Amino acid sequence: MATGERPTGHDGHALRPERFAALWRSLSAIGRAGDGGYLRSAWSDADLACREWFVEEALDRELGVERDRNGNLYAWWGDRAATGAVLTGGHLDSVPHGGGYEGALGVVAALLAVDLLRERGVTPARPVGIAVFADGTGARFGEPCLGVRLLTGALDPAAALRLRDRDRVGLAETLDRAGGTADGVGPDPQRLARIGGYVELAIEQGHHLSERDAPVGIGTGVWPRGRWRLECSGPGVRAATTPMAERHDPMLTLAFAVLAANKEARLRGGYATVGRVAADPGVTTAVASHATAWLDARAPGEEALAALVDAVTAKITDRAARDATRVQVTVESRTPRVTFDHRLLDSLAATLPGAPAIGTPGTHAAGEFAPRVPAAMLFVRNATGIAGGPGERASDADCAAGVTALADALAALAGG
Amino acid sequence: MATGERPTGHDGHALRPERFAALWRSLSAIGRAGDGGYLRSAWSDADLACREWFVEEALDRELGVERDRNGNLYAWWGDRAATGAVLTGGHLDSVPHGGGYEGALGVVAALLAVDLLRERGVTPARPVGIAVFADGTGARFGEPCLGVRLLTGALDPAAALRLRDRDRVGLAETLDRAGGTADGVGPDPQRLARIGGYVELAIEQGHHLSERDAPVGIGTGVWPRGRWRLECSGPGVRAATTPMAERHDPMLTLAFAVLAANKEARLRGGYATVGRVAADPGVTTAVASHATAWLDARAPGEEALAALVDAVTAKITDRAARDATRVQVTVESRTPRVTFDHRLLDSLAATLPGAPAIGTPGTHAAGEFAPRVPAAMLFVRNATGIAGGPGERASDADCAAGVTALADALAALAGG
Repeated sequence: MATGERPTGHDGHALRPERFAALWRSLSAIGRAGDGGYLRSAWSDADLACREWFVEEALDRELGVERDRNGNLYAWWGDRAATGAVLTGGHLDSVPHGGGYEGALGVVAALLAVDLLRERGVTPARPVGIAVFADGTGARFGEPCLGVRLLTGALDPAAALRLRDRDRVGLAETLDRAGGTADGVGPDPQRLARIGGYVELAIEQGHHLSERDAPVGIGTGVWPRGRWRLECSGPGVRAATTPMAERHDPMLTLAFAVLAANKEARLRGGYATVGRVAADPGVTTAVASHATAWLDARAPGEEALAALVDAVTAKITDRAARDATRVQVTVESRTPRVTFDHRLLDSLAATLPGAPAIGTPGTHAAGEFAPRVPAAMLFVRNATGIAGGPGERASDADCAAGVTALADALAALAGG
Repeated sequence: MATGERPTGHDGHALRPERFAALWRSLSAIGRAGDGGYLRSAWSDADLACREWFVEEALDRELGVERDRNGNLYAWWGDRAATGAVLTGGHLDSVPHGGGYEGALGVVAALLAVDLLRERGVTPARPVGIAVFADGTGARFGEPCLGVRLLTGALDPAAALRLRDRDRVGLAETLDRAGGTADGVGPDPQRLARIGGYVELAIEQGHHLSERDAPVGIGTGVWPRGRWRLECSGPGVRAATTPMAERHDPMLTLAFAVLAANKEARLRGGYATVGRVAADPGVTTAVASHATAWLDARAPGEEALAALVDAVTAKITDRAARDATRVQVTVESRTPRVTFDHRLLDSLAATLPGAPAIGTPGTHAAGEFAPRVPAAMLFVRNATGIAGGPGERASDADCAAGVTALADALAALAGG
């Protein structure tokens, strides 16, 4: 089946929800915590059990299993040494008490998409690969998409090998223990060169698809994001001896900033989070001399993000004038918007006519591949809007629709 | 001069401002920082130089100099072994970048009060002592009024000797180095029993006297105070993947609490300070699961303090309901109101007719003595309202008026 021949919709049957549910069930008990969330920290026993599950499912399907130098696993349908491969997948590790769908849905869906295409009698012209990326959440070592970013070269391998987790265990040691070897870690341009396109299926982080009553949508790009340090300062004085009217308390300015950032994000359809704060000297009996907050801000577009941060900055500055405190806003990191590959998006639009096109605020392997390999995403409707937590939920019917959409996309891209 | 004979006002001449300025100048260069504040940490070189200055001034006046087992210095006019002694004084150490008046004004004024009384021909019937209390600010070891509280037994000596400063230097080692000995530290009931009354002159912490256009006021007691822990919690979720509407962010509840505490304190004439905050997990990319603030609250009376904390609690609870977060308010420490000795206050009122009677929000030696020894305070008008910081200021004229008032009070109490 080539794109040109069947421009819209899928031919052949769709996946039944019961078939999604059956394969899902075989994975969903691993690493499950009492709260319904998952404890699948990268390279933990639970994560290794998930990877073992993947290898068995791949071998059951007679797919060629491979591990790369960066700890990423692949199951190949077709000749893995050929060029122009179509890659899909996800990750099986989770953030602490994370949701079961994030990352894992992409892996389960890919296995079922291969089943569906085989049942339809498709033999792809180019190899189709299913990837399980190492430490996809980045929760263990604090570097998002660790395995992908090592593969693409976005992350310096020497710096990565110095990373340590919360228990001070190093990445090098972890890779060695997991049966890989830290020696080979680093960019793999030959492997990248063989990938013709990357399409990732994931659960939506939000509820745009719910609002539009659509089980599946097309991911057009990744929101730009950044981290800003908001520093407020004043003359630190003692709580016991300084009348309220004589204070210039930076904690008030900061508290106002936290509320203002939340309000502006809600008004503007962006995200603003203050999850980290610090006060100096940080003692109970003193008005702080410095109060600092870190603002994580994300928005659908560059202009929207700039406008959000500008609005927050204006509000803090105004409040600082009233508090007679000083305020400084410093950008600590800034990631521009990622726009997915236009040809890939056109192909997805052709196989999924009428599917909503949405951006995503989160971090995905597709966003990491995008600068080097044509990449795009498919999203499955999120029943709760929550991603990465115990509340994360997608219906079997929507997941099955996602599998069907992924199968159609892979067929269109891999040719047959 | 006995109280009964001259019930109001002072007889004899008042101290001229120039005389205050001259003695003040001889002390004011020691430990002065570039910002006009003072670096006279207890037992630092600057503090030891101040104590040396005191000893020299005392010896110049032929006063009997003595150091007690807890590092407090005394200069005695009359027989220090006699009972019914009238004690006054202050401390010479400062908080980092503290003001020059806090503590030191009481010491300088006491020396000048002795001069004034001698010029008036007074010979007190009971001994008059000038104390320089060790670590009066408590800034070095984190225990306010360290020397006084060791003397009275309010502070356990074994616990005190385990105290360490920010550089991990212990109190025991510090006392030994300063030429004292840690062995003798602890309660000194015989010494306390010889004190018939304690009157402390200090700069006002606030501007009640400015508002009432009075150079000197009578301190009637110490405000009740306490520390409350405000804990807000919610499901910690990721910033990247959780839409604003799905969050229950305890940082918002906390920020609101900080602003509410400030507003309620201003409305009610109390003090509320949040100088310490903490967030858990405290990472930039996560909505906090826990956000905690420590509230230092003070008010003129017990009912006013309870009402202030109740109002803050009600506002946080209301906001937590809107944020769908949980909130818990826990009292960590609570110090009741100290009311000074009625007979002493009557005597001060008689020598200072029309002087405003004010409470104080701060911590003073007089507050520590009050449960064990008749105690009261005199306050000098604060030109800026700021105490304990570089902005702290009192005019020479007001300080001289304070000296005259202190001299009158000492004469009335010591008899002659």
